[in-house]
Amino acid sequence: MTTKRGKPSGSAKLREAVCRANRELAATPGLVQGTFGNVSGVDRAAGLFVIKPSGVPYDELAPARLVAISLNTGQVLSGKLRPSSDAPTHLELYRSFDCGGVAHTHSEMATAFAQARRDIRCLGTTHADYFRGDVPVTRALTATEVGGEYEKNTGLVIVETFKRGGVAPDDVGAVLVAGHGPFTWGADALAAVERARMLEFVARLAYGAELLAPGAPALDGFLVDKHYRRKHGKDAYYGQL
Amino acid sequence: MTTKRGKPSGSAKLREAVCRANRELAATPGLVQGTFGNVSGVDRAAGLFVIKPSGVPYDELAPARLVAISLNTGQVLSGKLRPSSDAPTHLELYRSFDCGGVAHTHSEMATAFAQARRDIRCLGTTHADYFRGDVPVTRALTATEVGGEYEKNTGLVIVETFKRGGVAPDDVGAVLVAGHGPFTWGADALAAVERARMLEFVARLAYGAELLAPGAPALDGFLVDKHYRRKHGKDAYYGQL
Amino acid sequence: MTTKRGKPSGSAKLREAVCRANRELAATPGLVQGTFGNVSGVDRAAGLFVIKPSGVPYDELAPARLVAISLNTGQVLSGKLRPSSDAPTHLELYRSFDCGGVAHTHSEMATAFAQARRDIRCLGTTHADYFRGDVPVTRALTATEVGGEYEKNTGLVIVETFKRGGVAPDDVGAVLVAGHGPFTWGADALAAVERARMLEFVARLAYGAELLAPGAPALDGFLVDKHYRRKHGKDAYYGQL
Amino acid sequence: MTTKRGKPSGSAKLREAVCRANRELAATPGLVQGTFGNVSGVDRAAGLFVIKPSGVPYDELAPARLVAISLNTGQVLSGKLRPSSDAPTHLELYRSFDCGGVAHTHSEMATAFAQARRDIRCLGTTHADYFRGDVPVTRALTATEVGGEYEKNTGLVIVETFKRGGVAPDDVGAVLVAGHGPFTWGADALAAVERARMLEFVARLAYGAELLAPGAPALDGFLVDKHYRRKHGKDAYYGQL
Repeated sequence: MTTKRGKPSGSAKLREAVCRANRELAATPGLVQGTFGNVSGVDRAAGLFVIKPSGVPYDELAPARLVAISLNTGQVLSGKLRPSSDAPTHLELYRSFDCGGVAHTHSEMATAFAQARRDIRCLGTTHADYFRGDVPVTRALTATEVGGEYEKNTGLVIVETFKRGGVAPDDVGAVLVAGHGPFTWGADALAAVERARMLEFVARLAYGAELLAPGAPALDGFLVDKHYRRKHGKDAYYGQL
Repeated sequence: MTTKRGKPSGSAKLREAVCRANRELAATPGLVQGTFGNVSGVDRAAGLFVIKPSGVPYDELAPARLVAISLNTGQVLSGKLRPSSDAPTHLELYRSFDCGGVAHTHSEMATAFAQARRDIRCLGTTHADYFRGDVPVTRALTATEVGGEYEKNTGLVIVETFKRGGVAPDDVGAVLVAGHGPFTWGADALAAVERARMLEFVARLAYGAELLAPGAPALDGFLVDKHYRRKHGKDAYYGQL
Repeated sequence: MTTKRGKPSGSAKLREAVCRANRELAATPGLVQGTFGNVSGVDRAAGLFVIKPSGVPYDELAPARLVAISLNTGQVLSGKLRPSSDAPTHLELYRSFDCGGVAHTHSEMATAFAQARRDIRCLGTTHADYFRGDVPVTRALTATEVGGEYEKNTGLVIVETFKRGGVAPDDVGAVLVAGHGPFTWGADALAAVERARMLEFVARLAYGAELLAPGAPALDGFLVDKHYRRKHGKDAYYGQL
Repeated sequence: MTTKRGKPSGSAKLREAVCRANRELAATPGLVQGTFGNVSGVDRAAGLFVIKPSGVPYDELAPARLVAISLNTGQVLSGKLRPSSDAPTHLELYRSFDCGGVAHTHSEMATAFAQARRDIRCLGTTHADYFRGDVPVTRALTATEVGGEYEKNTGLVIVETFKRGGVAPDDVGAVLVAGHGPFTWGADALAAVERARMLEFVARLAYGAELLAPGAPALDGFLVDKHYRRKHGKDAYYGQL
């Protein structure tokens, strides 16, 4: 592994944005506990992404302390600190999904669903406003997958989940890793954080509904599409022009 | 659609009141997430109501930025911004119910009941102090209703729910739209917000009670009336004269 | 009904203490919503108790605005404001129980138990530290009781609950009125508020335990006594001498 | 019992650390209610541990007000205040477990599990990051154990739980005392508090998962080990070098 320790890789703009997104993640009540959670952002033209260093408290973050990683080799390009241990998971998501930012949290209710190994079913329009259908849970990793390149395999099993289920990563920008917790992605680092926040809210709504009415009917597909399209794509009519 | 862009429609007093009510909604913990939620107030003599613009953050609201809409035509009368996408729902409520303000939120527990497609049953005097009986959930909208004038049809299905159930909108100033969330109404915009707040509290109490004792007995009708009348109508004896 | 409007009844010290206790109640997160909730304190030598006026916001309270009520006649002795509508309930508790203060709240989880019409069973030492056994729920009031002197009858049904169950009001200073909410009492107004606070905490613990393990075993009687006596009575050894 | 009232036992450094840890415990939302909860730290070379005095509010704590207790005799060595009534429990943990600090709380969800008499099963990686396996609940104490040296016997039953279950106290630094609440331990007083905080978070996650999916599968052993070892021991690769 060759790493350059000179001029930091990743533009100042990207580092600034990813640093702000990590702070935003930490500032949102209920999203992170201690140093759990990390956000990254990608610069595909430069062939790298920038991510939080491992175990560093959020209030000690600075753009220069972030770690840049090559999309091609997965190696650290610059930065004296070690990257988040989840960096190989982010890498696989950037390689397979067309997104600009990835966020990972252990937010309470989304993690409870991940531990219960249940999809967060799309039961309401709040959910459909942000996620076009159920947020899927992955299968559990095998002993071989955990014993090998664990974090990379976590990314691969996420990708597998979307392929197997025929779900477009663009439509449902979130997943629950079984027995672990959620990853979210979006147009950039901040969008990934915003989605992590909405995922937790949607998980709380679904939790209440599932306990009140186990097996409550899913939202009709035409209503899911209606709400998702109110906010996304060319026919969106939510917000200002 | 003809809209006047000159002097804003809706009195300064109404705009001020509706702006304050929207801020109050946003300031109440747990009522709104992001830019979800909107409040309106009506001036029946002037034939219009004033509502939050769509997707505008609550701290950027100002009386002049609110949007005025004709009760007769449903068209925007003044304001450069687009109204809340839920405006046609508010319109139908003003047309059918005798109220001065309408509020819409995705507050957590009321929305969980809406997603569970369950009425919030009147299980306690706290509920009866504010709502004279169960808060009903609507039927789900059909594909035709969603594919057509969706937000208008949401309003119509609310009105249908009260007619079909023989519930007086004056007695129970709240509804849960199935798979969506609550709408509340009252004497003015602020009263609608206050009701949204109490609805969420009452939903939390009912949630706890339903999980502790599924099928717990409803409050006796004579006790519902007793409490509702302690606070409402000519025989009220709560508070000061 | 004769009321004196001159020098306020009830000593300055009592009024001060009850006013402070009402503010303490309001300042505790989760105990009161809006103007729900009220606290009173008694002066048995003077034959009166002092209570919060009805519907007055907590931050507008002042010792002089409290209302004094005769223990003998139940009539207002002084104060221009109407007393809390629950005053006749407080009166019956003072008449039957040997206590110095009474508090009433609609705190969330205690009220959920009241609406579920379930006792808060003594499942843990936290409970036993404050309440020597289950906190009982009353029977529902009859139509006649509600139609007559409703608030007085609420007090009578509380007293009946303790007599019927053979529970000493000194040992378990709290009750849940079915479909309504909790009342607590103690040595003085502040002690009643402290008990209301602990009741809500104990209710939250019991709620979690009941959902995790329906029918979980009650705490052994000898452990209930052990903990209660660690903090109460002549053999107490908790805290400093 | 001989106690010295002159120069305080326990180094200034230890007293400072234990005082800070107690304040940290109180400052963490949801860990303590009122004066529930206490933290101690040990100096094995000096043969003593230092603990919070009983019933003293956290904001009145100072290093000099802590109480020093002999590991050998269990007697108070210095300090004018009485120690936490749970001191004999801490003593037994120091005698049997190789740890530097002990914390006790009545944190809400961990206590709910203790009242439900259920282990907090290891359902997720968040749990495994901090506790290498299920957090066990003890058996209930007998009438004889409660009637005798109750707090000492509480410590003994904790030690018994780990021996009987073949669990290494180093791997799982937490226990639930049946019908009571959690104790945690770690390298020093602050580490014990950090563990108490994580235990509560892990309990919340498990609570949600157990209600969503009763009997949800435990995390695979190889994944538990993987996560625990990412953060503990010679092969740890979380955080910075």
